[in-house]
Amino acid sequence: MEPATIESLSVLRAKSGTEVDKEIYAFKDKGGRDVGLRFDLTVGMTRYVCSRRDMRPPVKLACVGGVWRYDEPQHARYRFHTQWDIEVYGTASIDSDAEVIDFSRSIFDRLGMSKDSVEIGDRRVIQEFITKRLKMESNERAVELMRALDKVQKKSRTELLKEYTEKGFEARDLEKLLEFGGLKGAPKDVLSRLGELKLDSAAEMGELADRLAARGIKNYEYNLSIVRGIDYYTAVVFEVVDAARKDLGSLCGGGRYDLLPKLLGRPELSATGAAGGIDRAAMSLEGIKAPQLPLTLVAFASKDVFPNALEMLAKLRSAGVRAEAPPLERPLSKQLEDASAMGARWALIIGKKELASGTVTLRDMRQRSETQLPFKDALEKVSKGD
Amino acid sequence: MEPATIESLSVLRAKSGTEVDKEIYAFKDKGGRDVGLRFDLTVGMTRYVCSRRDMRPPVKLACVGGVWRYDEPQHARYRFHTQWDIEVYGTASIDSDAEVIDFSRSIFDRLGMSKDSVEIGDRRVIQEFITKRLKMESNERAVELMRALDKVQKKSRTELLKEYTEKGFEARDLEKLLEFGGLKGAPKDVLSRLGELKLDSAAEMGELADRLAARGIKNYEYNLSIVRGIDYYTAVVFEVVDAARKDLGSLCGGGRYDLLPKLLGRPELSATGAAGGIDRAAMSLEGIKAPQLPLTLVAFASKDVFPNALEMLAKLRSAGVRAEAPPLERPLSKQLEDASAMGARWALIIGKKELASGTVTLRDMRQRSETQLPFKDALEKVSKGD
Repeated sequence: MEPATIESLSVLRAKSGTEVDKEIYAFKDKGGRDVGLRFDLTVGMTRYVCSRRDMRPPVKLACVGGVWRYDEPQHARYRFHTQWDIEVYGTASIDSDAEVIDFSRSIFDRLGMSKDSVEIGDRRVIQEFITKRLKMESNERAVELMRALDKVQKKSRTELLKEYTEKGFEARDLEKLLEFGGLKGAPKDVLSRLGELKLDSAAEMGELADRLAARGIKNYEYNLSIVRGIDYYTAVVFEVVDAARKDLGSLCGGGRYDLLPKLLGRPELSATGAAGGIDRAAMSLEGIKAPQLPLTLVAFASKDVFPNALEMLAKLRSAGVRAEAPPLERPLSKQLEDASAMGARWALIIGKKELASGTVTLRDMRQRSETQLPFKDALEKVSKGD
Repeated sequence: MEPATIESLSVLRAKSGTEVDKEIYAFKDKGGRDVGLRFDLTVGMTRYVCSRRDMRPPVKLACVGGVWRYDEPQHARYRFHTQWDIEVYGTASIDSDAEVIDFSRSIFDRLGMSKDSVEIGDRRVIQEFITKRLKMESNERAVELMRALDKVQKKSRTELLKEYTEKGFEARDLEKLLEFGGLKGAPKDVLSRLGELKLDSAAEMGELADRLAARGIKNYEYNLSIVRGIDYYTAVVFEVVDAARKDLGSLCGGGRYDLLPKLLGRPELSATGAAGGIDRAAMSLEGIKAPQLPLTLVAFASKDVFPNALEMLAKLRSAGVRAEAPPLERPLSKQLEDASAMGARWALIIGKKELASGTVTLRDMRQRSETQLPFKDALEKVSKGD
């Protein structure tokens, strides 16, 4: 399904956090209503599922669609870009989180990326650390402090300290949180450190490791600094990164966001999912050589054999050959220039002479050689790839 | 390529005609600029090509993307819908028009529609009729009058007469135009009538018929009332309709629009193309039975064999079987209820008993029968389709 592109601003704002609020492409429509272009697909899909009480959980939805951010465009981050998105509603099971991670990873595996890796965190662990170790009672303040972890990669430690002491946090608390958030590595190492710190919520991360193992997923690490920027996340959060292209940021991200269905009136409908940008995935794939079908240009010596050229074009295409024909008005010499300019591998030329003898002339654009042969032999030759 | 979703209002208005102007989803952005959401893909693609003087014509572009209209939603006409769009720039050849018609028709053929048919008109013929027969000199007035033909299907003759006499046109001229626009049928019949009327531009429609014949296209008729609503069209215009679903309107439409590149500063860059809505095509396909893969639910008798269930799920999916597994927490009885509710064809059940004997239990959900067999035999059975 595809959610609405234009949503009322109040729905878009639902616990999206102040960071995202600034970036919403908001405006008044012709009817004077406060609306905005969707900044993700999750909010709209969740609003939809929350309104469909007839659906039997678990509900699994997927979508590919464009999203907007009112933001200065920067490298690999545009005002408009296309995302894929998957969501699972109505199961609180941590195995659903494992399934979402499994699915996300499989996308990049199928695309042939070998350097992708998954980094997994858990907001509950951070929250428990803040409550137990930093003795902070207010949940709102805890979330605000947690957001510092999401900024570690963009801001220096000094900048963060300045920002958070100005917000009234203790410098010592921030230091402790940043140190804790620095925990990163193989699941068993991170789990053992969490055990030493006597954090109960570590049990959930242990359970997740078991679930991932059952799915045969090995290529991941735990990274407590992963908290994701948006406020609706509640538990497991993760990102997939291309280790060879860290400059691109995360290729996809997701996690559990039970808070959002609750805000939209369905507290029993827990939710977990993931989304990724198509552009970043494409950039990450740039280094991978994609096989491209060689191009065949069907050329014609004179206008009166143009119908024959079109007939051959249709036959080539039916056989799966990537083929083009120049426009009718183009003289043969220009057609062959076109073939070079377009990077054609072959030019298949038809003229009166060929027509009379039941053949075509096949020009090898790379070797600059020509042979005359029956059309079916030419078709076989150009079908073979290189 | 995909053109920008948000364009400056002045570009969107470029000769789009007053009808479309009202329907543009326009607003002021946060920077106070007058912008609008694209109402088609053609304007943005044309703006792009006009700015790329380095591209060697003919340039062929294709896009699938969403478009918006600020309009009351009605049957098969939404505020947001997805279109496919193809454009050919830089060739004035009528064979390019034939190619666009050929491509458009081939989409519906490949989708398995047999009742689709192409209706082709030509604005030049109408324009010549208005100038020569109705002795109307002003081009603007001619275009205004021509638009009446586009309204014939939505408004009664009396309504049109009232509207146009109020605009200062002669009732007699409108009557004559509507009669002329009624010309419709096999190309040779329409061409012979145009010959009697001594309209020079009929030659172009004759040439088009030759080009379509060379491409083996027979399933079309000439229909002079086809003029398309948007002002940038200049010559050949066409629509594809589903004869069995006339209520849907046209499945796709297009034509030559040399005026648009001219308005965008590239008068030498002629243009022809077509676009169609995905929703209407889908509605038109509703009557056609699409094969759906049968679903297999992998069920587990207890939590400890869940990893084995997941392993089988992965194997089934790798083999191309449409398969699902219930969430970990679900007891077996509920899992089998799920299988019924989801319309599963098969339930593949794994338990300790099966694990010990190296088998699985395959439940035929339709026959309500069960057999115990090795996994690979079960896989073979569920792979076979029904």
